[in-house]
Parts: sequence; C-alpha cells; structure tokens
Amino acid sequence: MQQPFTYAVVGAGAIGSFYGGKLALSGRDVKFLMRSDLKTVKSRGLEIAEHPGGASDRDHSGGVAVGPHRIHLPHVQAFGGTEEIGAVDVVLIGIKATANEALRQLIGPLLKENTVLVTLQNGLGNEEFLAHHFGAERVVGGLCFICLNRTTPGVIDHYGEGTLSIGEFQGLPQERTRRIVADFVESGIRARVVENLITERWRKLVWNIPFNGLSIAAGDIPTNEILSDEGLRHLVHELMEEVIRVAGRLGHEIPDTFIEDQIVRTYPMGAYKPSSMIDHMEGRPIEVEAIWGEPVRQAKRAGVDMVRTEMLYRLLKKLTA
Amino acid sequence: MQQPFTYAVVGAGAIGSFYGGKLALSGRDVKFLMRSDLKTVKSRGLEIAEHPGGASDRDHSGGVAVGPHRIHLPHVQAFGGTEEIGAVDVVLIGIKATANEALRQLIGPLLKENTVLVTLQNGLGNEEFLAHHFGAERVVGGLCFICLNRTTPGVIDHYGEGTLSIGEFQGLPQERTRRIVADFVESGIRARVVENLITERWRKLVWNIPFNGLSIAAGDIPTNEILSDEGLRHLVHELMEEVIRVAGRLGHEIPDTFIEDQIVRTYPMGAYKPSSMIDHMEGRPIEVEAIWGEPVRQAKRAGVDMVRTEMLYRLLKKLTA
Repeated sequence: MQQPFTYAVVGAGAIGSFYGGKLALSGRDVKFLMRSDLKTVKSRGLEIAEHPGGASDRDHSGGVAVGPHRIHLPHVQAFGGTEEIGAVDVVLIGIKATANEALRQLIGPLLKENTVLVTLQNGLGNEEFLAHHFGAERVVGGLCFICLNRTTPGVIDHYGEGTLSIGEFQGLPQERTRRIVADFVESGIRARVVENLITERWRKLVWNIPFNGLSIAAGDIPTNEILSDEGLRHLVHELMEEVIRVAGRLGHEIPDTFIEDQIVRTYPMGAYKPSSMIDHMEGRPIEVEAIWGEPVRQAKRAGVDMVRTEMLYRLLKKLTA
Repeated sequence: MQQPFTYAVVGAGAIGSFYGGKLALSGRDVKFLMRSDLKTVKSRGLEIAEHPGGASDRDHSGGVAVGPHRIHLPHVQAFGGTEEIGAVDVVLIGIKATANEALRQLIGPLLKENTVLVTLQNGLGNEEFLAHHFGAERVVGGLCFICLNRTTPGVIDHYGEGTLSIGEFQGLPQERTRRIVADFVESGIRARVVENLITERWRKLVWNIPFNGLSIAAGDIPTNEILSDEGLRHLVHELMEEVIRVAGRLGHEIPDTFIEDQIVRTYPMGAYKPSSMIDHMEGRPIEVEAIWGEPVRQAKRAGVDMVRTEMLYRLLKKLTA
C-alpha cells in the first residue's frame, strides 16, 4: 500500500490556511509555515467559518441572521521556518506572487527527489518562476475558484463554493496530480484534474481582472457595488470580453457564455471584498504583475492589445505603489 | 462713442473671480454674484496671486523661494442675488456645469435685449444648455487654457499663462465678441476670437480628459505625479490620441503634434492640481458629464468608440458619486 502524501503549506493566508486546514481536518499530515499568525494558531488552532449566505451576512448582522458554521482545527502543526518542517511530498504555495523571491530560500528544505510544488497563487507567471528555480517537472498549478477572506489571525471566512482545479505545468496529468486531487476530494473540497492548466488560469483571469481590479480602481468597493453600478457592470462585461478574446488568440478557447456564468456566480457573493481590495485597504502589496501586467505582456508579444486591461493595470500600479 | 460693456460674473470660483477680477482691475464695471465668499470678498476684496514658477512654489516653501506676486482688488461689487445686480451687457458664467440647472433662475434678472451669455465652463454641452433656455443668439463660449486654483475664499492662485479663446456658439464672430475680447486684452489677458468654438472645446478636452481624469482615478495626484509615472504618461498619450481621433471624425481637425505641445506645457505647471481633483478632495461635484460623458456620447452617436475615455468616465462617475 502507498504511503499517504505529506504536505507543507507555504504562505498560510486565506488560501493556504483553508486548503491546508481542510486536508489536516481529514487526517492528512500537513505542516504550515506561518509568520504573523504563528503564535495565535499554535495556541488557538485554525478556524474556518463557513458562510453559506455569501459575504453579506457579515455586514447585516440583524437579529434573525444565522451565523456562520464554524469548523475548528485545535492542533495545527505550525512552524516558523521550513528547516523545521523538513522534506515533504507536496508543497502547497499560497503566498502572494509579490513575495515569490522569498520562495527561493524557503522551498529548499522542503524538497526531496519527487517533491511536487503546487502553486495556488493568482495570475500568470508563477509556474514559470517555480520551474525556473526548482525544475519544471516538479511544478503543478492549482486554481481556486473560491471566496475566502482572512480578516483575523487564525480565522478564515469562506463564502461561496468553488472548484479547485489542479493540473500539470507541463504535459498531461500524472498519477501524482490525481492523488493530490483525491486527497482534496476526501477532505470535502470540490476538486478536479484539468488537462490544460494555463487555459484554466485564463478562465480565472476572466473574473479576477475585472472584479479584483475594479474593486480597487473604483474606490475600494465590494463586488455587489460594482454590479449595482450600471457603468461598472458594462465595464466588467467589456473587460471579460477582452480577456476571452485574447485568451482565444493565445490558444485558450473560452466560450462567450462564460461571461454570463461568471456574473451570475458573483451576485450571491454579496458584499464580497476581493483579496486584492483587502490587501489594498490594509496596505499590503497587490499581485499587479501576475493578474494584470503579465496577461497584458503576453498579449502584446502575440501582437494583441488589451486596451482596457492595460489601462486598469496602469491605474492599479500607481494606486497600489 | 459706444458705452463700455457692463459685466456680471455668475459663479465666482477660480475662473469667474480671475477673469472678472482682471476686468474690474482695468476699470470695467463688473458685478459678481457670490455665495460662500460673499462676506469675505465684501470686507477684504479679491486677491490674485501670480505664481510665475508654476504650482510647485506652493509645495516647497524653501528659504530661497520667491513668493507669488499679489494683485489686490480692494473694492469688489459683490452681491448675493442676481436681482440686486440687474441687467448687464455681458454675463460671464463660471459656475460648475453640474450646477447648470440653477442658471435657469439666476440668469433672468441679468438679461436685457442684447445681453450676451459667455460660458467659461468646461467640457461639452454648456452652450447647448444656455441656447435651449435663453436663445442661441445670445450664446458665446470662452475657453480658458489656464491654471487657476481657489483654495481660500477671495484668493485666486494663478499658475502658468494661457489664452482665453472666445467664439460664437452659432456662425461667425460678431462685433460683440470682438469687443469682449478687446476688453480682456486691455485687462492684460491674452485673449483671441476663434471662428470654431467647438473645435476649441475639443482642443481643451485633449488636456482635460486625461489630466483632470487621471488626477482623480490614480488616487488624487497632481499633474507632475501623472507625468513622472511611466504607465500613466503612456495613458495620457493614448487618451489624447483617442480624443484627437474622435474630434477629427466629428469634423474638428487637431494635429497630432498638439499632443506633444500639451505635454510639454504641463511640465512647468509642477504639482498642479486640476480643478476636478480639488473638487473631488473637497467633496464637491465634478463635471463628469461635461468633460467625459458628453464627448463619449457624441462619439457614439457618430459611430465611434472612445474606449479609454469611456472607461475613465465610468470609473470617475463611481468615484465621484
């Protein structure tokens, strides 16, 4: 019988804590690299607060509202350095793309011969970065179509279900990818293997480019305020069309019906604050290059302009400088 | 011998106070309608602070800086209502386009048979508004390529010289227009008669659309910060190209060299805050429709898209709502 995979989570923000936490809750061996939350999580554990009603239940705490369903992981294997964690089978990477340089030091102690690096990060360029430094054969990408916020140390708010799509950076899915997906599925995560990871990345950008971008550029507003403004709702459509058109030119076919799907999906999120907006409000770096800059550059290299995305990129770069 | 023109200034913000003040300083009969500044100006008069070094001398008050040259108009004919002013030959309109509805009540008492209405307002649609309510034959437009700020009641800061271009809303320049221009010239204002007022309006939009817009959308930053950011400087170019292209399609030819002219003109302004940015920072309404909305709509009616201007319009509409 195969030994179960051991996991390390690097970057225990919302994404890393949630997915690592779910694996740990189902009995996997998961070790977390933590910084600011280390002491809190060591003493109090991790909590996942499930909000079946979307983000709005936080903002309208009327007497009849049903609070979130709280899941508690009391004992968390939390560490302050990757040397203490040591080698594992799978590294889940959840740090911001803006901090990628730090991975060059952090990853080393976690590696053995066949260690897989799964980047759960946003945008484009992260797989390439990992491949460049640690070898392309190790690299797997994961796309989280999910709404998570970490507003308190050790507490992750989870709104709206989504699917975790996992695929190889190079070539077709391997056995290791299927095993990782199986681990997530057994932990109660809706997960699947995808054959074309980069197409999935572009599909995710269809949402992230307009919503993460406009949430900041329109004055730190949540998704429901974007959708309730007629001009911004048009702009969301236009940005999504632009992303789909460019993805198609780069060989990643996404049907136009995906636009309406994505918008319909966004309404029940309520007053959802995209992660970039929360980062902006709290003065943390934003993944401006991964989400907006790199798609614009890839399009330009293929001879296509992303006029609106580029304009948003330029505004965001200055707004978050 | 002809009687000299009598003037009324409606909307004594920066533009109205400056041009009306200059006429009064040269001995013209100028009556000002004032609201918030009425008491201050009645007791202390108007002051024009000339800053030959651009806006930056305000922000870097080092020991060697030469202060502005101050011109004082001690006795100002300031009134709280247009009934007290009575009929005049020329009305200079300097209120924000967002307050145009108020003109329907304010203008009446100022009119006699041949009273001329000169709108010094920004953007498109103001001449049409006045023509609709008071008759097109009265309407003259004035374009102020000038940097003015009113930051203290009764004090107007003047940076960077510009030309006041005055033209008929309908048809070729009439004698009255030449007389108004002559009055300004004798008051020390660089002024000229223009034959195509609306072309001049589009020329002014070439500057206002990018600089007024980006000063707000990029986070309330002055013009020098726009120009020192590489991405925003590109965006200024692209927006200017878009405005010139659309103006051309609407019959208003503006040469491409105008872009470089306008950018070169902007550097010596230093840390200049466009009026829209000051209004935004102080919570006052912005002329979003006159400067961005109306050009986009006129382009659309002619079958042309202003992609970047429209995106800026949508962001500004929400940011200033």
